[in-house]
Amino acid sequence: MKNQVIPKATAKRLPLYYRYLKVLLDSGKKKVSSTELSEAVKVDSATIRRDFSYFGELGKRGYGYDVESLLDFFGKTLSEDRLTSVALIGVGNLGNALLKYGFHQNNNIRISAAFDVKEDLVGRIVDGIPVYPIEDMAEQIEQQQIEIAILTVPAAVAQDTTNQLIEAGIKGIMNFTPVRLTTPQAVQVQSVDLTNELQTLIYFLNHYTTEKQ
Amino acid sequence: MKNQVIPKATAKRLPLYYRYLKVLLDSGKKKVSSTELSEAVKVDSATIRRDFSYFGELGKRGYGYDVESLLDFFGKTLSEDRLTSVALIGVGNLGNALLKYGFHQNNNIRISAAFDVKEDLVGRIVDGIPVYPIEDMAEQIEQQQIEIAILTVPAAVAQDTTNQLIEAGIKGIMNFTPVRLTTPQAVQVQSVDLTNELQTLIYFLNHYTTEKQ
Repeated sequence: MKNQVIPKATAKRLPLYYRYLKVLLDSGKKKVSSTELSEAVKVDSATIRRDFSYFGELGKRGYGYDVESLLDFFGKTLSEDRLTSVALIGVGNLGNALLKYGFHQNNNIRISAAFDVKEDLVGRIVDGIPVYPIEDMAEQIEQQQIEIAILTVPAAVAQDTTNQLIEAGIKGIMNFTPVRLTTPQAVQVQSVDLTNELQTLIYFLNHYTTEKQ
Repeated sequence: MKNQVIPKATAKRLPLYYRYLKVLLDSGKKKVSSTELSEAVKVDSATIRRDFSYFGELGKRGYGYDVESLLDFFGKTLSEDRLTSVALIGVGNLGNALLKYGFHQNNNIRISAAFDVKEDLVGRIVDGIPVYPIEDMAEQIEQQQIEIAILTVPAAVAQDTTNQLIEAGIKGIMNFTPVRLTTPQAVQVQSVDLTNELQTLIYFLNHYTTEKQ
C-alpha cells in the first residue's frame, strides 16, 4: 500500500484532510463522518470516501472515521514524521516572502538554505535561513542532501538554474517562474503560476457570472 | 459560444497558450501546429486539440493554427482586451511581494488598491498602488467597481474579511490563506495554498521515487 500510486487530485487533498483532522484532535474529537469532513474542507463526501478508499479500510460506514488513526496514517503518508529540507533559489520579492512564509509552522518542512546572486544579500541570515552565493548552490545542496528546491529566479535564468539544480541532485522543483521547465522524467515539477491563476479566476468570473444573470 | 462553459482544466491552460502564442507572433511566426505548441507548453497535443475544439474551428488539421487568429480569440476570451482592476487585502510579506509581482506586465490585470490594518502602511503608495485602511475597503471597492480580491490576511480573519468583501460586491477571490472559505455559490474562489503545494510535491517525490528505484 505504501507505494500505491494514487491519483494526483487525491494527493492534493491529503494535506487538507490532514490539517483539519489535527484541528479535530486538538478539540478532543474522536470520530468524524465523511459528511462532517465534507462540510469543513469543502470537498463533497463521495469524493472523500473515494479518496479514503485508496488507503484501504480507514473507517466503517455509518460509524465514521477514527480521528487519531486517520491522522497517524496521513501523517506518515505525507512524511510529516520526518523533516524535509528545502532550498530556495532567488531571494527577490517573492523569494523573500516565501522565506518568511512559515512552511515549518504546521509541517515538517524547512527551508534550510537560500541562494542569490546579489552581493548585498549573500552571507546574511534571513529569518534564520542563510543566504549563500549562487556559486555555492551545487555544493550546499549536495552537502545538505537537499532534494527539493523552490524556484523564484527571473524567467530568463529559470531553465539554466533548473539544469544546475538537477545536476546537483534535486528531485523536485516548486516552480514560481512563468517558464515551463524542461526536466528529466524522474524530476517532479509543481508549477505555481500566479498570473495564470488570476487569469483563470477572471475568466470564470466573466463567463459564469454572465451565465447566471 | 461566448458563454459556453468549458472544463476548468481547459480554462487553466488558456493563459499558457496565450502567452506562448504572443512569443510566436513577436518572432514573426504565422502558423503553429499542435505538436509545436505541445513541445513549448508541455501539454500533450491530443489535449491541445481537445481544448481548442471547445472554441470551435480555430484551425484545419494538417495546416496548423493561425497564430494571429488564435491570439485574438484567446485574448478576447481571457478579457485581455480590457483592464481588470483587483484589490489586495493584507500587505504582509506575501501581500507586499504580490504588489510588486508585476501582474500587469503581460496582462491587463492591475492591482488598483491595497488594504491593511497597520498604521505605518496605510496612506502610503507601494509600487504605484495606494494602501488604504481596512475600514475604507467597502467604500473603495464600490467606488472603483472592483470585482476581484487577492486575500493575503492572517488565517484568523480570513472568513470575516471574505464576508465583508462579498458584502462590498466582490465576485472572485484569489485565496492565499490556508482557510477553506465559505462563500455564496455566485462567488468564485481560487485557492493557492503554498504549504499544500509543497506537501503534494514531497508526497509525489517520496512515492514515485521509491517506485522507480
